[in-house]
Amino acid sequence: MRDIYIVGIGQTKVGEHWDKSLRELSLEAIRQALEEAQIELPEALFVGNMLSGQLSNQQNLGALVADHAGLRHIEAIKVEAACASGGAALHMAYVAVASGLYDVVVACGVEKMTEAPPSKTTTALASAADALYEAEHGLSFVALNALLMRRYMHEYGYSREDFGNFAINAHRNAANNPCAMFPRAITQEAFIQAKMIADPISLLDSSAIGDGAAAVVVASEHFAKSRPLTPIRIAASALATDSVAIHDRPDPLFLQAAYLSSQKAYAQAQVGPEEIDFFELHDAFSIMAALSLEAAGFAPRGQGVRLAIENEISLQGRIPISTMGGLKARGHPVGATGIYQVVEAVLQLRGEAGANQLQGCRLGMTQNIGGSGAVAVTHILERVD
Amino acid sequence: MRDIYIVGIGQTKVGEHWDKSLRELSLEAIRQALEEAQIELPEALFVGNMLSGQLSNQQNLGALVADHAGLRHIEAIKVEAACASGGAALHMAYVAVASGLYDVVVACGVEKMTEAPPSKTTTALASAADALYEAEHGLSFVALNALLMRRYMHEYGYSREDFGNFAINAHRNAANNPCAMFPRAITQEAFIQAKMIADPISLLDSSAIGDGAAAVVVASEHFAKSRPLTPIRIAASALATDSVAIHDRPDPLFLQAAYLSSQKAYAQAQVGPEEIDFFELHDAFSIMAALSLEAAGFAPRGQGVRLAIENEISLQGRIPISTMGGLKARGHPVGATGIYQVVEAVLQLRGEAGANQLQGCRLGMTQNIGGSGAVAVTHILERVD
Repeated sequence: MRDIYIVGIGQTKVGEHWDKSLRELSLEAIRQALEEAQIELPEALFVGNMLSGQLSNQQNLGALVADHAGLRHIEAIKVEAACASGGAALHMAYVAVASGLYDVVVACGVEKMTEAPPSKTTTALASAADALYEAEHGLSFVALNALLMRRYMHEYGYSREDFGNFAINAHRNAANNPCAMFPRAITQEAFIQAKMIADPISLLDSSAIGDGAAAVVVASEHFAKSRPLTPIRIAASALATDSVAIHDRPDPLFLQAAYLSSQKAYAQAQVGPEEIDFFELHDAFSIMAALSLEAAGFAPRGQGVRLAIENEISLQGRIPISTMGGLKARGHPVGATGIYQVVEAVLQLRGEAGANQLQGCRLGMTQNIGGSGAVAVTHILERVD
Repeated sequence: MRDIYIVGIGQTKVGEHWDKSLRELSLEAIRQALEEAQIELPEALFVGNMLSGQLSNQQNLGALVADHAGLRHIEAIKVEAACASGGAALHMAYVAVASGLYDVVVACGVEKMTEAPPSKTTTALASAADALYEAEHGLSFVALNALLMRRYMHEYGYSREDFGNFAINAHRNAANNPCAMFPRAITQEAFIQAKMIADPISLLDSSAIGDGAAAVVVASEHFAKSRPLTPIRIAASALATDSVAIHDRPDPLFLQAAYLSSQKAYAQAQVGPEEIDFFELHDAFSIMAALSLEAAGFAPRGQGVRLAIENEISLQGRIPISTMGGLKARGHPVGATGIYQVVEAVLQLRGEAGANQLQGCRLGMTQNIGGSGAVAVTHILERVD
């Protein structure tokens, strides 16, 4: 298969954008990415989005975003895989260029979440769970994750304070990210005192919803070589699924979809976890960060939290995560998150991560998870020069 | 590029399925298609759906449908392009196999619309229009089409009765389709007397919403050759977009997206409209049938309705349309419709269309339209033995 590259990136700040609609957020990210790549007209657009229908009464988002970004008439579709919609859109962009039918396409993730009443947003987010067997019984998305965290603490003997460094690390890194929703450090004390949301998940275990858009230009090798910036190779792009309802899984504390997509990605890139320089994981809740580290092979079962406790997840650690703030502190505009992760990984690999720059990094991995582990998309990105 | 085939099809009856959920409808269609193709485990699943989030509070439909169809863990995503979601899902399946990364995948379209209160369904369908500039002003989807039909009648001097044969032809053909929602003929008299919905669109100009699912197995040539049934080649698969809001188009009576996707499809298949044996078009409203015939090159501007008046759209006519009932009489479960069209075209090309069989047909075209022409997906299918 031919090599495929990212040749342009764009992102808006994540936050409460009362002045910007879905189409305006997308426009901002897409134009940035196209300008970086110095191209006028990509051949196709894949829009990752979960909630535009439920929260903004707007579907047909492919055509809408394409038109508003000045790309009227091109091929454009929306891709949905709950909170992994952004990762899935990039995966489709990758497959499209791999097919040889396209030389240059755009993957954009966009979400607008803060306009709707909070109860509506909570209900809409619960549609990532099984509507008939989970949400129907009143389980919200944070409640599902609270059940997982409680079980994990019980099985492996952790306290909720043991998870604190996931949030502290993310906020420390977000302080240097101008696009982060919460660009400020927090203390261990603040974590311990944080308001309980769904015991044992506190406010500071939880990523925040937000409005935002991010975009990447994906191109064939031939096309990439004539672009101005260092192209970053997509060494792997892999998606796997699991049951949507947690009770249908033989082992609720093992993210089988994340494991399978990681394994597929390692095989494609012909590398193992020990060669990955940093990992932009899906820390929607701190328990998800722990489970993702385990499923991706960075820690044995029950030991994901130890990487946080021992600070191996910091910029100086063995496996840096959430290097620009992660979902926790950059913010989690759900359908856009998977693209934000990749944009941040590209910044690291191009050496443009500013104060958070990892020295000499060449291989970055991103993992975008939808539902409570029902779908996972893993990308491995490589600096090849 | 390598040749790509459809090697299995499945469909449920379209109707009010009070006893079946989204996952159960999908299961039925997917298992039929996999059994026809005699395969156990495809490599990926693309689910076309528009409204599961808004009407059933269920997203993450890729993972959900995969699991319930016995395909847990495979790659699975949902594709949305309003009423063209099914066509877009097949297009993605086509691109995936074209990439060489997959040898056999499934495209499934599913929609469940009759469970929600009608006002909620009407609001949800309006999300295919521009939320800020059309739906916001109270324009429903049928109202948008009524504006187009009124303008067309004014420009070209037709009466609403001139459109009658679109509905009459569709219902005549549906009478022999066991999966049709309305398997019965209607008279010209009934058409004229039909209740007005949004003047000049009457009940019998309008397709009905419904519940249903349809699926196709898409495979590489190598894989297709070892399958039991006549494989049908996908000679072209093309998607194009336009502005979502009708007022943004220089000429509201010309479906630019449908035109562009038709042109791309003809170029891919290296054929012209005169070689197409039948056309499964998007007759969501009779005005859409007329505009689609014109955009696809089967009639000059303003002459699409003449094909109906002169009965050239019947099974014995110059360009048969809606050969198994079309959206009008088979029913229009929106995100599933694009796959139903393809399933019906495959039945014709395999010689399995029963009483509605077109003799000696070798090239069939399908066109799935989302929004009021904002996105169009055109497929050309070929019997090659």
